[in-house]
Amino acid sequence: MLSIDDFAVFCKKKGFVYPSAEIYGSLAGFYDYGPLGVELKNNIKTSWWKTFVQDRDDVVGIDGTLITNQKIWQASGHLSSFSDLLVECKKCHKNFRADHLVEEKLKISVDGLNAESISKLIKDNNLKCPECNSELGEIKSFNLMFPLQIGADKTKESTAYLRGETAQVIFTAFKNVVETSRVKLPFGIAQIGKAFRNEIAPRNFLFRQREFEQMEIEYFINPNEKKCPLLSKKHNYLEFLFLSEKQQEQKEEAKKVKLSMLIKQGLLSEWHAYWLAESYLWFVDLGIREENLRIRQHLKKELSHYSKATFDIEYKFPFGWKEIHGNADRGQFDLTQHMKFSNKSLEIFDEQTKQKILPAVIEPSFGVDRAFLALMYDAYNDDKERGNIVLKLKPKISPIKIAVFPLVNKLEEQALEIYLMLKKDFVSIYDRSGSIGRRYARADEIGIPYCITIDFQTLEDKTVTIRDRNTTKQERIKINELKQKLINLLKE
Amino acid sequence: MLSIDDFAVFCKKKGFVYPSAEIYGSLAGFYDYGPLGVELKNNIKTSWWKTFVQDRDDVVGIDGTLITNQKIWQASGHLSSFSDLLVECKKCHKNFRADHLVEEKLKISVDGLNAESISKLIKDNNLKCPECNSELGEIKSFNLMFPLQIGADKTKESTAYLRGETAQVIFTAFKNVVETSRVKLPFGIAQIGKAFRNEIAPRNFLFRQREFEQMEIEYFINPNEKKCPLLSKKHNYLEFLFLSEKQQEQKEEAKKVKLSMLIKQGLLSEWHAYWLAESYLWFVDLGIREENLRIRQHLKKELSHYSKATFDIEYKFPFGWKEIHGNADRGQFDLTQHMKFSNKSLEIFDEQTKQKILPAVIEPSFGVDRAFLALMYDAYNDDKERGNIVLKLKPKISPIKIAVFPLVNKLEEQALEIYLMLKKDFVSIYDRSGSIGRRYARADEIGIPYCITIDFQTLEDKTVTIRDRNTTKQERIKINELKQKLINLLKE
Repeated sequence: MLSIDDFAVFCKKKGFVYPSAEIYGSLAGFYDYGPLGVELKNNIKTSWWKTFVQDRDDVVGIDGTLITNQKIWQASGHLSSFSDLLVECKKCHKNFRADHLVEEKLKISVDGLNAESISKLIKDNNLKCPECNSELGEIKSFNLMFPLQIGADKTKESTAYLRGETAQVIFTAFKNVVETSRVKLPFGIAQIGKAFRNEIAPRNFLFRQREFEQMEIEYFINPNEKKCPLLSKKHNYLEFLFLSEKQQEQKEEAKKVKLSMLIKQGLLSEWHAYWLAESYLWFVDLGIREENLRIRQHLKKELSHYSKATFDIEYKFPFGWKEIHGNADRGQFDLTQHMKFSNKSLEIFDEQTKQKILPAVIEPSFGVDRAFLALMYDAYNDDKERGNIVLKLKPKISPIKIAVFPLVNKLEEQALEIYLMLKKDFVSIYDRSGSIGRRYARADEIGIPYCITIDFQTLEDKTVTIRDRNTTKQERIKINELKQKLINLLKE
Repeated sequence: MLSIDDFAVFCKKKGFVYPSAEIYGSLAGFYDYGPLGVELKNNIKTSWWKTFVQDRDDVVGIDGTLITNQKIWQASGHLSSFSDLLVECKKCHKNFRADHLVEEKLKISVDGLNAESISKLIKDNNLKCPECNSELGEIKSFNLMFPLQIGADKTKESTAYLRGETAQVIFTAFKNVVETSRVKLPFGIAQIGKAFRNEIAPRNFLFRQREFEQMEIEYFINPNEKKCPLLSKKHNYLEFLFLSEKQQEQKEEAKKVKLSMLIKQGLLSEWHAYWLAESYLWFVDLGIREENLRIRQHLKKELSHYSKATFDIEYKFPFGWKEIHGNADRGQFDLTQHMKFSNKSLEIFDEQTKQKILPAVIEPSFGVDRAFLALMYDAYNDDKERGNIVLKLKPKISPIKIAVFPLVNKLEEQALEIYLMLKKDFVSIYDRSGSIGRRYARADEIGIPYCITIDFQTLEDKTVTIRDRNTTKQERIKINELKQKLINLLKE
């Protein structure tokens, strides 16, 4: 598997992702999406929105601001507990993430250890500054939220924050959504948008950035209603690699399980199970191979302050199994906090039980950039036989769907006619330069699923060839059947 | 015409736009898009991207970061000149925008006046603090960029900025795009995304926000190539209301002109004319009535520091004719600045002339929120005869395309079957509550272009009625012809 650094080079070379403002030496933890990257990213977001919002009757969307009222983050707990532990070198005054430093120096995991324990590890093992080898200072907490001053008058209220997650903006819009749309429990509010964390040590290319994009649903349920009527055979019989808390404690490997088993064992509630399955199935539908996916239960000690139970969907990256999706049972934590801090009732009238209810929340949370990275990695094939990279993205998310080639330049007139016809319906490119083999290779490398070649036979019988990226097989087809054929092929 | 404040109330009530985090008293100049607003906004963005990126061969897209390297804004001039003039009250220490204060108190326009002239107006007219009526202090410059601290180490380089416009991120990605995609002059780079300005006095609902979204193209041309081969009859014969610099100086009204006339008069270059026409036509295609649009030439004294010539497309809002699109000839200003500050060559090799060229730039710049506001205003009809609001958005941008109604509840089974069939292809809702008239009215108010009603005749002959929002006319159609019929209707 290509290392993450080499993969970043590939992504840049092919116009998918660039270091942000590279001519100025860039900024650590920030990336710009290039011409192909932005198309792939948009396709991922559009697929998600269609699946989880537009195709459903029980989820509506919102799009809230990125700069947000400070009170949101007081209520959510982010200002007090959304922090990393820092340790500063006494001599060179550089700051380091204490947990990373200990993990790297001592080759152990410090997941769930508190500040005191980590501090003790540093002292007991006499760990030094990684830069200048001098003594390290005390551990301190570093908040990851980005503060901003709004307006010209500096007052207590003029500090706002870039949102640390999209979720809280859903909770603060909750009352307006309930009052102005016709949602009834159970229902979800979804949002796609940027979030920001002032990471001390951004790393692994798109995986841990300071600016990133999320796709989140807060799904509101009656906390007394344990049955999920949406759970069907599709979910119950779903099998996946699973790693429980117990397996992790006993250093065991992930095993294949059925979702219904986990529900039976009481590991997760029906509603939680339903959303975990729906989320998993979305990744599979977009083409990620199941052998590269697993679901991991959070250890109790690593649970966020708001969560009763969390399950991650992880992808097998070259730097290890890592979270690409988090699925948390947030209970009533957030709405309770926002009721308290805003002094507004967030209870809603339940038509079924005729009672006022403070809903509980299941949160399926996706990272757009992480989904992008996992999909790109999973699609990447170095085809030694062909002698080029083949990016086997599913047609429905491929940035460019069709390439049209004239076999030789004297066929340009016919080729352009077909290109202009197809371009109306499919994102297409026209390529006339280089040998036909070179053009196929270029198309493979950026994941174009189908290439249409106009050759001399086209002049005789009005047919063209369609070449399949994954198999390299070519099929001859009549021009007047081409559009319908492509519509069917591109549904995949 | 509904006042902007009443319009904001309508937008909230119907789930289009809410004040951001309203339960916490919101933040001035920040708005959240609700369930219907986010769909409309996405449709606007998708239409723009398809028109200006995917359907063209000469424009590619990018999606850059919002948090950006400080050097970008040193080079662009934003840190030195992207400012408003402030005046502070000597007693209550509140700050006010000096130009607005003078304009409101003296009922004159101060467009293009410098700090000294405005300061003189305040003193000569003895203007006081609008809050406490005390004496005002000296005028000072207030920069509109939002600074941020990146990482834990506070250094000279750790200050970054939220981008003040998307344009600069296109210029800084320019070199990477040229080197990794196969663009040839003339070509454009497009971007949709948020931008931020610390406005002292945000106002007029979505019109002047502190956080807003832009859709921008930087179109790169050979500065020696004056002919634009893309200009066609469609552009040359295009007629629109136009207000020249001269007309403004002589206090004349806008007049209808043809684009070809303006080119002949030397008011704008062929490339500039082409992009102005394409931009104007996009608004018309989305349904804005031409009597509510005009093009206004910027006065020389109001030109931005980077611009050789700018033309705005303005919409007739209740608060006056205001810019919804700016079309600037930026010349070589930006690439020259970024070459100087980055020490990287931004010249590109031109295949036609076999020379290295520093391109010149035409910039069509659209505000997403302003397009949203203009489209909503233009679609808004208070239909006294019908007794309800009718939101006549064009079907292709309407948030919801189809509503399905059972005439009475005992027809639910048939109605749900049709609803589930349509929902796969069209964003649809199902509504069974209230009289059929009430349901039509509700659909009108949120702009649903077509309502399908299942009635008793459906059981007999497998037909349903399609009701047209704009005319209220109903047509009976066979269920098996319904999908194709709707596909055709919704293209509008």
